[in-house]
Amino acid sequence: ALATQLSECFSSGLLSGLDVVITAGPTREAIDPVRYISNHSSGKMGYALAQACAEAGARTRLISGPTRLSCPANVERIDVVSAQDMLEAALACKADIFIGAAAVADYRPETIAAQKIKKQGSDSASTTLTLVQNPDIIATIAAGTHKPFMVGFAAETENIVDYARNKLIKKRLDLVIANDVSRHDIGFNSDDNAVTLISAASEEYLEPRSKYQLALELVRRIAIAYR
Amino acid sequence: ALATQLSECFSSGLLSGLDVVITAGPTREAIDPVRYISNHSSGKMGYALAQACAEAGARTRLISGPTRLSCPANVERIDVVSAQDMLEAALACKADIFIGAAAVADYRPETIAAQKIKKQGSDSASTTLTLVQNPDIIATIAAGTHKPFMVGFAAETENIVDYARNKLIKKRLDLVIANDVSRHDIGFNSDDNAVTLISAASEEYLEPRSKYQLALELVRRIAIAYR
Repeated sequence: ALATQLSECFSSGLLSGLDVVITAGPTREAIDPVRYISNHSSGKMGYALAQACAEAGARTRLISGPTRLSCPANVERIDVVSAQDMLEAALACKADIFIGAAAVADYRPETIAAQKIKKQGSDSASTTLTLVQNPDIIATIAAGTHKPFMVGFAAETENIVDYARNKLIKKRLDLVIANDVSRHDIGFNSDDNAVTLISAASEEYLEPRSKYQLALELVRRIAIAYR
Repeated sequence: ALATQLSECFSSGLLSGLDVVITAGPTREAIDPVRYISNHSSGKMGYALAQACAEAGARTRLISGPTRLSCPANVERIDVVSAQDMLEAALACKADIFIGAAAVADYRPETIAAQKIKKQGSDSASTTLTLVQNPDIIATIAAGTHKPFMVGFAAETENIVDYARNKLIKKRLDLVIANDVSRHDIGFNSDDNAVTLISAASEEYLEPRSKYQLALELVRRIAIAYR
């Protein structure tokens, strides 16, 4: 019954007329033609948000790293692989509201080998991979001249709320959705999630529920905060 | 028509009474609770071989890294994540024929961080990841006291046949199936493949075809070479 109510509420058009851009999924950072660094993000939370935004009447674009998910109805998906690709796609999209739900790789290999790197030396030989920082997509968008209403995610395994509040201030975000990814019942790859929603003035824990139900609730709060 | 003929040929039991162990897919090597190193192997070639071996009457076990594929009929799948997991599973399986089709990570991070590693220093700061060599699964199995008939894969982007022949000798394999993974029409993630089959005495290119059709052909040759 609640789902129906919320659904009706959205079809009334909480976000109608607005451009929403959402990033989702992991990024993959190539080491060589066959190897890469990635992370366990399934993209489910970002896709659920895209669905909820489209249902709320927004013109919704979903910039997605490699996932197994199909694109929600009335959402335009832009497929990317690396953080650099994702940044370029994000910079090319006009947005009133920007939701950074992707688990963007903080680091990428300094160089991408043109050929598959061969194992070297004896079995006991170790090697090092030099990593450089990727551009910070959400901070780059927030620092732009036409700054959208900015919603970030913080996926952490410890000190969740502290890190998230720090992210809100440092990256000049309007809302941060903090996720405890050390819990196996929720978060990465799970169908359920529970988050703490953080603004400059408030902090609220939203109990575990399906990612779609959570997305409906988050979109309602984003719409209110945006006004 | 050819498919039907081959299929009938297999149902006659080319490998009946034999234990076949196949590794397939990529491995994932954890950096911390959310990040990992992996590769683009889809597992399709290994799964096709498992299907063809089961159809040929073998008791077939498939030790699989993370893939999107479902287990073929009459195949026992053992799910693993890392190279170390895969080695332990392989050592626990008795095999008459061992087919190493997995793209096992050569290296893993020296330590797995217990908590998500935080970005450090300025945007221009680089960092290094120390990598150590993983155990060589196929060489370890080939060096065991009850050495199975050993079939390896070589996924290369250059000097394909040279590397593959070197692998045959160094790791004491009976056959090596060499794969050019720089070609986008075949190999990793593609439904088709073309390979060069290498033994101590011979070398033969098998034209592009579906991975299942190729698996039928490879199983026929493996069965002949095993006898």
